[in-house]
Amino acid sequence: MARLGILAGQGSLPGLLAAAHPKALFGHFAGLAVELPGTEAVELSYERFGEMFAALHAAGVTDVVFAGGLARPGLNPANFDAKMRELAPGFLAAMQGGDDGLLRAVIAAFEAEGFAVRGAHELVPGLTAEPGRLAGPSPSGGDLVDAARARAILDALGPLDVGQGAVVADGQALGVETAQGTDAMLRFVAETPARLRQNARGVLVKAPKQGQDLRIDMPAIGPATIAAAAAAGLAGIVIEAGRVLLLDRDATCGAADEAGLFLIAEAAG
Amino acid sequence: MARLGILAGQGSLPGLLAAAHPKALFGHFAGLAVELPGTEAVELSYERFGEMFAALHAAGVTDVVFAGGLARPGLNPANFDAKMRELAPGFLAAMQGGDDGLLRAVIAAFEAEGFAVRGAHELVPGLTAEPGRLAGPSPSGGDLVDAARARAILDALGPLDVGQGAVVADGQALGVETAQGTDAMLRFVAETPARLRQNARGVLVKAPKQGQDLRIDMPAIGPATIAAAAAAGLAGIVIEAGRVLLLDRDATCGAADEAGLFLIAEAAG
Repeated sequence: MARLGILAGQGSLPGLLAAAHPKALFGHFAGLAVELPGTEAVELSYERFGEMFAALHAAGVTDVVFAGGLARPGLNPANFDAKMRELAPGFLAAMQGGDDGLLRAVIAAFEAEGFAVRGAHELVPGLTAEPGRLAGPSPSGGDLVDAARARAILDALGPLDVGQGAVVADGQALGVETAQGTDAMLRFVAETPARLRQNARGVLVKAPKQGQDLRIDMPAIGPATIAAAAAAGLAGIVIEAGRVLLLDRDATCGAADEAGLFLIAEAAG
Repeated sequence: MARLGILAGQGSLPGLLAAAHPKALFGHFAGLAVELPGTEAVELSYERFGEMFAALHAAGVTDVVFAGGLARPGLNPANFDAKMRELAPGFLAAMQGGDDGLLRAVIAAFEAEGFAVRGAHELVPGLTAEPGRLAGPSPSGGDLVDAARARAILDALGPLDVGQGAVVADGQALGVETAQGTDAMLRFVAETPARLRQNARGVLVKAPKQGQDLRIDMPAIGPATIAAAAAAGLAGIVIEAGRVLLLDRDATCGAADEAGLFLIAEAAG
């Protein structure tokens, strides 16, 4: 590829990408504080797609990667440039079908402009996991039953573009991930009244939505996910092998070992 | 029917049933404070199914109704009587398939004992709603799209015995009801960060799970649901006609009118 442009959202993924591609252009957005010494950076705005495309072209960028959450940014139509005024109605319509609709429309807009849109997992080796136990103790038989049930919930919701995560404890669904994300769901699970929870621990399953374009909004876990899962009293976490980003693998596995949570990667059924 | 036994959980439903069936035997459980002057009452325990069956038979009870949530009670095996020791392994196994599995097993145990298990909606006229707008303003076109999407989420999850409620706002799923119930989900929705919510209001859809036995754990809404939906910033609520209990209909509709929330009953698709 000629040159990579990293369109940086929050979290540690943008930094991992920049480290693996030191010559990339680092595009950051207002409100997302990023400091990457030695990397060429440019400030971008989703209100001004025309300026964004022009800046990327001017820097010789041919391939782009969306790194970190692209949570619906707060957009002020008064600030739109001509290109964004052209694109916005399509984005708005696409949003009605859920976040994936919007993200697919954003990818299509970049592709129409001549950029190749790449997935973070293609650009950094080892970002996803091979099948097997990655950390922590062995799951119990009951944990595996809970994991299968959580996976069935995700499979049922995937075609509706909902849910990259679900928690089941002793057969009882305690959380289904919605737009607020995994950590918010785990805080919700942590607040389950004791009379309902009955000391059941439970399992978090993380996987992409069926048919999800992994080039954007790929599910990810990191040390913070382990901490949130431990705070929610879970027994462990199952991620889909090859299709969930493992951010800071050593720290993540170390945190799971320390918390006594199992962390397993499973091939899709 | 010869005599009704009301197995009273929490909420206002037990009182509504007792008012409609003043000669019923009122069975209440430790920890659930109930006062119903003029009604014959007996204290029961889910730890002692043998004693429960004997007390109901002795009072001439032939038909029973489970009224109010039968949240998994905290059970101490040391207190089990012989009948419960016999039933408990089956209940435990049934729980692994979700709450409906447990509830079906409990119904089967009562039926095996010769009781007819009735649904609250059969015993009190007017507890469910006919299709149409019950209260509040007319929904917008966007509200109806959100409602259809929330309904699709429930339809997808129903076969898995998850979800009697879901919230969608501007196409974005913000809540899927799990074991913690509707009010907990609405509190979760209320906490959605503004940058995600983007001033979208949203719609709550309540419906029974596909294939759900309405004789137990029938979905219900009441004035508290309206208050929680208003606190979560929703535009309105859609319930399934004929299959969702409308507790204290006047107060519920009055609260919706006052809060400016639409309340609509829709026939199942």
